[in-house]
Amino acid sequence: MADERLPSRSEDFAEWYNQLVLRAELADYAPVRGCMVVRPYGWALWENIQAALDRRFKATGHVNAGFPMFIPMSFLEKEREHVEGFSPELAVVTVAGGEELQEPLVVRPTSETIIGHMYAKWIKSHRDLPVLINLWNSVVRWEKRTKLFLRTAEFYWQEGHTAHATAEEGEAEARQMLEVYADFAENEAAVPVIKGRKSESEKFAGAVRSYTIEAMMGDTRALQSATSHDLGQNFARAFDIQYLDVSNTLQYCWTTSWGLSTRFVGAIIMVHGDDQGLVLPPRLAPYQVVVVPIYRTDEERAAVLAEVERVGRSLRDVRVRTDLRDGVTPGFKFNDWEMRGVPLRVEVGPRDVAQGTVTLARRDLPGREGKETVPRDAVPARVPELLSDIHASIYRRALRFREDHTVQPAGYAELAEAVQRGFALAWWCGDGACETRVKDETKATVRCIPFDQPGGSGRCIVCGRPATERAIFGRAY
Amino acid sequence: MADERLPSRSEDFAEWYNQLVLRAELADYAPVRGCMVVRPYGWALWENIQAALDRRFKATGHVNAGFPMFIPMSFLEKEREHVEGFSPELAVVTVAGGEELQEPLVVRPTSETIIGHMYAKWIKSHRDLPVLINLWNSVVRWEKRTKLFLRTAEFYWQEGHTAHATAEEGEAEARQMLEVYADFAENEAAVPVIKGRKSESEKFAGAVRSYTIEAMMGDTRALQSATSHDLGQNFARAFDIQYLDVSNTLQYCWTTSWGLSTRFVGAIIMVHGDDQGLVLPPRLAPYQVVVVPIYRTDEERAAVLAEVERVGRSLRDVRVRTDLRDGVTPGFKFNDWEMRGVPLRVEVGPRDVAQGTVTLARRDLPGREGKETVPRDAVPARVPELLSDIHASIYRRALRFREDHTVQPAGYAELAEAVQRGFALAWWCGDGACETRVKDETKATVRCIPFDQPGGSGRCIVCGRPATERAIFGRAY
Repeated sequence: MADERLPSRSEDFAEWYNQLVLRAELADYAPVRGCMVVRPYGWALWENIQAALDRRFKATGHVNAGFPMFIPMSFLEKEREHVEGFSPELAVVTVAGGEELQEPLVVRPTSETIIGHMYAKWIKSHRDLPVLINLWNSVVRWEKRTKLFLRTAEFYWQEGHTAHATAEEGEAEARQMLEVYADFAENEAAVPVIKGRKSESEKFAGAVRSYTIEAMMGDTRALQSATSHDLGQNFARAFDIQYLDVSNTLQYCWTTSWGLSTRFVGAIIMVHGDDQGLVLPPRLAPYQVVVVPIYRTDEERAAVLAEVERVGRSLRDVRVRTDLRDGVTPGFKFNDWEMRGVPLRVEVGPRDVAQGTVTLARRDLPGREGKETVPRDAVPARVPELLSDIHASIYRRALRFREDHTVQPAGYAELAEAVQRGFALAWWCGDGACETRVKDETKATVRCIPFDQPGGSGRCIVCGRPATERAIFGRAY
Repeated sequence: MADERLPSRSEDFAEWYNQLVLRAELADYAPVRGCMVVRPYGWALWENIQAALDRRFKATGHVNAGFPMFIPMSFLEKEREHVEGFSPELAVVTVAGGEELQEPLVVRPTSETIIGHMYAKWIKSHRDLPVLINLWNSVVRWEKRTKLFLRTAEFYWQEGHTAHATAEEGEAEARQMLEVYADFAENEAAVPVIKGRKSESEKFAGAVRSYTIEAMMGDTRALQSATSHDLGQNFARAFDIQYLDVSNTLQYCWTTSWGLSTRFVGAIIMVHGDDQGLVLPPRLAPYQVVVVPIYRTDEERAAVLAEVERVGRSLRDVRVRTDLRDGVTPGFKFNDWEMRGVPLRVEVGPRDVAQGTVTLARRDLPGREGKETVPRDAVPARVPELLSDIHASIYRRALRFREDHTVQPAGYAELAEAVQRGFALAWWCGDGACETRVKDETKATVRCIPFDQPGGSGRCIVCGRPATERAIFGRAY
């Protein structure tokens, strides 16, 4: 498949994405409407994402647990906004063990409700707080229009659920986890993100405040890449999560939830990918380096393969794949691994063997510019340097792209035009009516109210009334 | 809770088990019939099991992937034995996104069918083989009688699914994975197992041959701890998994599947646990060492806590927990961590501080026998030695227990009696009628036909006809 041309991003970004996901064998369509199979290459990427996040969760005191996939329908109904937000998308088990169930079971769209039920049982005293639990699982939301990784009926994610003694602690936790996501996105995935608060209309169903990291994709659209919610006492009141404080008074807890999903794989594809295929961030790539032998005669073959083996073995702390496939040309292999986004290629040919060198080719810099020939002995030191450099380089490129496609419009007409080609950063009064007008007329929404504010005040870009905050407007996935 | 007495194993093994799972906070009952919540301490144990297995799967060339939890009902019906085996236990989604589904979706009880569908799509040529995929997920089987970890409506597991070009390769894979499980059980969990073949009646629904590792629990009952199935061409024919061989002829693949679940947590509890609580195998224990400070005065406190910190830090490659809880006595902490099965306790008191020593107390040897005082500087070297010794010691104890409760009965009457108190190893003709008689009259089943056979032949313990193999009979969980 690697020899068929991928559509270019400029001619059809959506089709480029769909074909790339299939050809790179990241995922495939499942025989169930809207569901996907994550293939081994895609799953290895997800496993690396999981490991990088899990490390951060544990470093901030969180522990993992396993909660059931089924939730009694009545649980969802206990929090009014929550059930309104999720009920159109539920998958419902009505028959089990050959019998009609008395109460239908919902396949979890998210676990706040069943978490709430168990926390109410487990938490008795301030000594039990905080509870800092994370779940790695999959959830189901029966979406009408689906797209591999970005929006599937079932998707994989982690969902953190915490309970605290005070409003301040809950809020601090929600903010802390957003920082964890931003740190992960930028330092592991090389995806620059804007941290901010969601508008009222874009908030999680049942939250007091929702925070988000927003990234700009290669077609200038926004992707909500992870969210963190301060749930206040909404779920604690709905599920009676109470504790005895130091003065022996019963108090409601303050809870949070936060999640990052396989959607983020979509962000990686769309932020870094180019017309040749994937460009995977080195710290998350299933293979960081591919070693490709080049030879014609049997004699060359033996010497080259021995050298390929040696190079592979010399890269101890690097995820290396040596491509020893027979029956395909080196050129085919180059294209294939380029399409699959391996950050660095090592080429070993007869001349390299003779001279004691290898050629290194960077995925992020096409052609000559990204190639260098180094002595064989220098490889173990040079490869980690290059991987680190590739990370920095693709991060800078993505950041520059976002900056080049972000404008500060002077008026509404300019905003309406700007959001067709990227983000618009503009004063907003906070009124939902202004937000709705922008959405109806331009399809753009308030992606977030960034934490990073210029200070001062201005006039709402829509209605002209006084505004104290600026918002990012953009079309979203 | 740690100060309430646990029922002893001899007075009520089932109740000892149930209370221990709850008190040690391994798991809790979910608000959905037959489902469990795996709490952080239980999940940490499961994560260590996962890591130990995943390492072995990857070392034998397997890769992970993610398959949907929903399977169209029609898929299950394609393999006759498979649907007969699983249909009484299915949970069925009939409504999704607010609409009745045209075809109901089954929540996977196991994934052979949807795997078969995708493999048929992916596999074209002998060059695509073998396919060696493993999934970490949860599955649902609506069992009537449930018990935490041992039998729950939803449980966590891994399911391996492979496809091969020849019958021999398929069979070799199924056998290899059984060896992997046995190696894991013995070398990570210190659980001695008997490797063998399942009888026809105990085979997986749709398999040609099923292999199992069977372990004896502390009440002398058997637990099937993991299984591996040679599926022959049954699923390949049902799902049209075909490949072009080297001579360009279309052939059906040979497939296998194999799994180990959270049931294994039950095995760990019931093989090693004692009347004080859990005894966790050191290589899988969430905390391998707990450090407990002992002090009375504030002055002692400062010195002791500083030393506790130092000891904790000195144990680099060990999973250490330092218990700094205020308001509970050292004695309470000792009992608490004993109940939770931490393999090794380090006690630090004022006298230890003065003398530059600490006291080490083994969980597997009660009282004085398991205690030793060592110089502070010897701790980093001594702890790994002791952990290794504890592993060997609990393995030996479990093996001796099994041997002490396994008899080779001379006749049927002796067999019927023996299975009430353990395993019986006896010649069996292989006829299902004999197996059924034993089951009906004694509640024991053929746990397996061990790989390890004495050779020669004998007379079936039930019917007296010639028999070439001996079987393990026992009552099973």
